[in-house]
Amino acid sequence: MSLFDSAELGHKVSKADFAAREEELHERLLKAQYRLAEKPDFPVIILCSGVDGAGKGDTVNLLNEWMDPRLIQTNAMGAATEEERARPRLWRFWRSLPPRGTIGVFFGSWYTRPVNEQVLEKSDPTLLAHRIGEIQRFEHMLADEGALILKFWFHLSKAEQEKRLKDLEKEKHTAWQVTEKEWENHQRYDDYRDVAEELVRATSAAFAPWIIVESTDKRYRTLKVAESLVSSLEARLDTPKRAPITPAAPVVSSSMDDVTLLSSLDLSKNLEKPKYKNRYADLQARLGKLGRLPEFSQEKAVVAVFEGHDAAGKGGAIRRITRSLDARHYRVIRVGAPTDEEKRQPYLWRFWRHIPPRGHFTIFDRSWYGRVLVERIEGFCSEADWLRAYDEINDFEAELTASGILVVKFWIAIDKEEQLRRFKDREQSPLKSYKLTEEDWRNRHKWDDYQQAIEDMLVRTGTRTAPWTLVEGNDKYYARVKVMETLCHAMEASLK
Amino acid sequence: MSLFDSAELGHKVSKADFAAREEELHERLLKAQYRLAEKPDFPVIILCSGVDGAGKGDTVNLLNEWMDPRLIQTNAMGAATEEERARPRLWRFWRSLPPRGTIGVFFGSWYTRPVNEQVLEKSDPTLLAHRIGEIQRFEHMLADEGALILKFWFHLSKAEQEKRLKDLEKEKHTAWQVTEKEWENHQRYDDYRDVAEELVRATSAAFAPWIIVESTDKRYRTLKVAESLVSSLEARLDTPKRAPITPAAPVVSSSMDDVTLLSSLDLSKNLEKPKYKNRYADLQARLGKLGRLPEFSQEKAVVAVFEGHDAAGKGGAIRRITRSLDARHYRVIRVGAPTDEEKRQPYLWRFWRHIPPRGHFTIFDRSWYGRVLVERIEGFCSEADWLRAYDEINDFEAELTASGILVVKFWIAIDKEEQLRRFKDREQSPLKSYKLTEEDWRNRHKWDDYQQAIEDMLVRTGTRTAPWTLVEGNDKYYARVKVMETLCHAMEASLK
Repeated sequence: MSLFDSAELGHKVSKADFAAREEELHERLLKAQYRLAEKPDFPVIILCSGVDGAGKGDTVNLLNEWMDPRLIQTNAMGAATEEERARPRLWRFWRSLPPRGTIGVFFGSWYTRPVNEQVLEKSDPTLLAHRIGEIQRFEHMLADEGALILKFWFHLSKAEQEKRLKDLEKEKHTAWQVTEKEWENHQRYDDYRDVAEELVRATSAAFAPWIIVESTDKRYRTLKVAESLVSSLEARLDTPKRAPITPAAPVVSSSMDDVTLLSSLDLSKNLEKPKYKNRYADLQARLGKLGRLPEFSQEKAVVAVFEGHDAAGKGGAIRRITRSLDARHYRVIRVGAPTDEEKRQPYLWRFWRHIPPRGHFTIFDRSWYGRVLVERIEGFCSEADWLRAYDEINDFEAELTASGILVVKFWIAIDKEEQLRRFKDREQSPLKSYKLTEEDWRNRHKWDDYQQAIEDMLVRTGTRTAPWTLVEGNDKYYARVKVMETLCHAMEASLK
Repeated sequence: MSLFDSAELGHKVSKADFAAREEELHERLLKAQYRLAEKPDFPVIILCSGVDGAGKGDTVNLLNEWMDPRLIQTNAMGAATEEERARPRLWRFWRSLPPRGTIGVFFGSWYTRPVNEQVLEKSDPTLLAHRIGEIQRFEHMLADEGALILKFWFHLSKAEQEKRLKDLEKEKHTAWQVTEKEWENHQRYDDYRDVAEELVRATSAAFAPWIIVESTDKRYRTLKVAESLVSSLEARLDTPKRAPITPAAPVVSSSMDDVTLLSSLDLSKNLEKPKYKNRYADLQARLGKLGRLPEFSQEKAVVAVFEGHDAAGKGGAIRRITRSLDARHYRVIRVGAPTDEEKRQPYLWRFWRHIPPRGHFTIFDRSWYGRVLVERIEGFCSEADWLRAYDEINDFEAELTASGILVVKFWIAIDKEEQLRRFKDREQSPLKSYKLTEEDWRNRHKWDDYQQAIEDMLVRTGTRTAPWTLVEGNDKYYARVKVMETLCHAMEASLK
């Protein structure tokens, strides 16, 4: 039996029945929408997919009529624009996500390309399996961030589709909707159905369900969508804020002895000034050249992440990199408290917005790893939130590397004594004193907590495609050279 | 004598002199930058223009070295992207403006196109005069919003340019910088100089000065730019927040009798329900069709503005429009308090970000007119701020209409009695009570103040290209039909 059989049963709603339900649904939808806007705890993400000619557009237009259009944002995801094509596949969806308190409707979504890869490009079926995994993780993350996700599949049988396209063509006002493309797709109806069936089945989940809508009868289709939407929305609004699920067992590493990645570092490594000057000059030229290679500027980009203890020398190391680059090709993002627009989006949104186009560098001075460092330690997010962050971060970085972006991550380590020396130095220097805050002293008191969090981070997010580089930072010259060398090497390796 | 003669004097700085100044400038720049970031009162906008090969890129790279690159954003404004080409000319500059507390450097700017129009496209010189006016008003607005604007013109004589290009070509590391385009531009050196001279002369103003930099000697060039930047920045940081200039004479209209635009409205106008239904159905079809015409979707866009007393029926009128449109082609923007990202930008930035691409509608439920209505009355901005807003708004709308966007503005008027009736009605209806707030009652007490502000607004911002339509709103049916009819008519007129 096919998944879509249940949507070929000939569901119908009479005009009278429709009229009887219409007003009630309309009122409930509006009311739910205002409750959502008043207490913007979560966003609603609605995907409209399915068969051509099934009336997706009509249905969404009607929902817009019934609701307050100021709180709905409809996204027609057609062909990607130039700016979108220069970035990872998911970037365009991230930039269109609705903020909490509002509804985002997507025509065309992260499902469009996986289907076309199979039907039009005849890609290997293992690619589909890979895409399914990506989608599951992406939607899981959205749901964990609080999104209410509803995915509608508008279904028509093949015969019904043919009839519908012909009807649309005959009518003067609707003929424009049917182009050659629609007829071509109709020829491929069976192929589309097979792929869609696999995709829909694999990506139906309690937190992001597919709702299959028999679309032959306009009134039935409309009621079904409106009723599904309003019930889900009401149910969610009536649920008290979910308590985060505490994991059954600690998921982070714990070592049985005192040997850790951090403690194995030899922080006495150093470089003398004349040697440093020589090597730095060479590296500067090398990096500058790499950034200008057409193989790089047309196909690659760099995301560099700098994390480290306070006063570890992140800023200085970053400056040594930017000196070799053209100011038109890089951005340095200093990550502090999120803005209020950022707070209304999933955690990673504020980083996605800075992902560079091809040929460009984005250098993050602190990054998404704040989730598993400061937010974990200070309790700015729940345990469940930072525990799931490890996987989300790995997915995020995998998405970047898959699109040709090099993800180069540095942990700059210093020891407690060296930090104290630098704090005192900063206190005394008029040009550096701005750098030292009360918070730095507070963080210092939590040194041991941080060591554990850092270790967990290194263990759980050090991947083959986006590895961490541990940098011995007590000696700044040594550290800067190691950073530059690592970056050059990563670029060279990727350009081979 | 040419404007650029002063930049062909053979200025030079010796290596020793440069070394002596370098450290001091570096420190002062960094310090000024941190003072700016700490108290983000204003943004710094730096334009880099001038002759090819004069070292603009090198200079900016050096400034980035000397300063904290996390607080500088360098914008290479090359050819416009697809998303940019679909919108008014200034949109791309608005979206790249630096937030207060940071520095934005522009390579290529709002000067690039006006120069090329003359030199490459051989446009009529009156167009240049027109562009100069646009630029003056735009920069004036930026300065009034607090921006510190510095415009550097990097100059080389023709002979010097030739020598420079040849030198760059010879050197292995820099040969890539010289393409055919640079040599073609060199052939047109005299044309470029003549246009640039006119443009630079006309747009030099105390609030946005041009600084002409003789660029033959690298050290001189660098010191000149760094010194100009740091002195301006320090001077501005040391200036206590400027008191807004109170105008000498009231600039708003005052009428000698009681006859006003608003009082001349016949609010008893009405339409019976059956008649309304008929006419609305016709208008709905007419609007739907207009939105799908290729002449519209490929060349035009609509910005519709709804203003009116509280409870005047803005929301209802907007909904009657959106019902005729495809949800994929419009956005409704409800204008409330600005977000914190919006607060760090010039006042109009939050509206520019929603300007639609071709074929799309943006409908503003309240708008930039808040500046001269609620902000004026509640004292949310200074008198000087709202007084200058009239001109800024006219410029803004002129920019939109010049790019093919129809700007259609509605004032929906009701009288005080009708408002009271509707407030009471809202109090009683469970579905409408969310619409009535304390603020609505407070605003009602200021009815007369608002009448004056509205009248001033209508008089000063009713332009031929972006006219106001006054809508008699006591009868909702009448009002909705008038709104729809006006919109259809405006679209038809523009498509002729």
